[in-house]
Amino acid sequence: MSERFFLATSPRGSAASLTGDEARHLGRVLRAKVGDTVRVFDGSGTEWPARIDAIGRDRVDLAVGPPIAPVEKSGPLLTIAVALPKGDRQKWMVEKLTELAAARLVPLVTSRGVAEATPSAIERLKRSVIEACKQCGRSTLLEIGEPMPLPACVAKKTAGSLGLVANPGGIPIGDVISPSLSRDGVGVLALVGPEGGFTDEELVTAVAAGFTAVSLGPHVLRVETAAIAIASMLAATAPPMLPNR
Amino acid sequence: MSERFFLATSPRGSAASLTGDEARHLGRVLRAKVGDTVRVFDGSGTEWPARIDAIGRDRVDLAVGPPIAPVEKSGPLLTIAVALPKGDRQKWMVEKLTELAAARLVPLVTSRGVAEATPSAIERLKRSVIEACKQCGRSTLLEIGEPMPLPACVAKKTAGSLGLVANPGGIPIGDVISPSLSRDGVGVLALVGPEGGFTDEELVTAVAAGFTAVSLGPHVLRVETAAIAIASMLAATAPPMLPNR
Repeated sequence: MSERFFLATSPRGSAASLTGDEARHLGRVLRAKVGDTVRVFDGSGTEWPARIDAIGRDRVDLAVGPPIAPVEKSGPLLTIAVALPKGDRQKWMVEKLTELAAARLVPLVTSRGVAEATPSAIERLKRSVIEACKQCGRSTLLEIGEPMPLPACVAKKTAGSLGLVANPGGIPIGDVISPSLSRDGVGVLALVGPEGGFTDEELVTAVAAGFTAVSLGPHVLRVETAAIAIASMLAATAPPMLPNR
Repeated sequence: MSERFFLATSPRGSAASLTGDEARHLGRVLRAKVGDTVRVFDGSGTEWPARIDAIGRDRVDLAVGPPIAPVEKSGPLLTIAVALPKGDRQKWMVEKLTELAAARLVPLVTSRGVAEATPSAIERLKRSVIEACKQCGRSTLLEIGEPMPLPACVAKKTAGSLGLVANPGGIPIGDVISPSLSRDGVGVLALVGPEGGFTDEELVTAVAAGFTAVSLGPHVLRVETAAIAIASMLAATAPPMLPNR
């Protein structure tokens, strides 16, 4: 079975179990049998081959083999802090950020933000991350952080990392990001504001904290488009995928 | 009224009319009155101020003023030829390509393609383009071309332009696209294959015609993600938006 399954809990020795949707999908939808082999991942970057030992109603017990050497290569480590868009656009954004190798998403609390990052919204986003990982062959989850107000977020920028703030009047991002970023292992923290944009005060706070205002093109981008465009720029500098699957 | 309205037919002298959805939206939803002023665009890059002269059931007659000097700046002229994804992903892709300043979308006919570019599908995509233009402040429509088989499409690459074909084993696109592309006015024709990828034969056809295989990141991208990632790369080299609106 070429599909990979997500382990909510990492294996203990050679024992592991699929639970919830993952177990039901394997047992009921795909009608797997005891003795079938599958591949599993726990979101930390490691994958294992596994044999099905028992199939229950909401649980599949597995015997896992030795881990498959992690081959995941990514671009610069990108944390993207975004004033969440509404509804389906949230889910789309998370799917695309997962495919495009972003490391972490932080729901950004801003003056003009519209969508609240409720615990249930965060849960839904985490489920979308797992689905996207399975689909795109990624073994390390896109981490969804706790919602954070802008001043607290900009303070998280570490020395030597690159801070970017999306703003239509900024420098073209193509002039700021160089292909060597990836090879140099520079971390990137990028801020994307809500539909109505950052307030002047928010922009000043970011720039004063060492962030560079960058333009992402000639038009006004939707929130999710801006986030995806930044992730695309950084994925574009990543070494190509190794052919292990 | 800050919203812009789309003219299906360009003004003749100072006379123009909104029809269909645009007329109904202005007349019934926004309850505009004779004498109100609006801004209109015809998708060619020009905008006009206009005064409402008459409001009918499905038609609003306007007196247009002198055109507002076009200020639209874009990056390199990008034609993106894509094996259309299914359902909502098509619409979403077109919205994002419009925001990200792609010039032209060609539905690419490939061996493993799944979605057919029927006339009604094309009509829906054109409507999405207009909606996205209104939303992102773009005055030149993203052109939707006729469906084209891959060999015919690669033959359209002009001398001096850059041909790209998305392929996981290619060179990182960040090493191929330079910020000077935009300043040099180089056209780009990019090919994105279907979910199952291009066949080897299709790849050979593209490479033989002078296309460079480019990787867009470390994971397997969905069709629409690949298309959006390429457009993001090129928008990233565009001069920033001028503050005219």
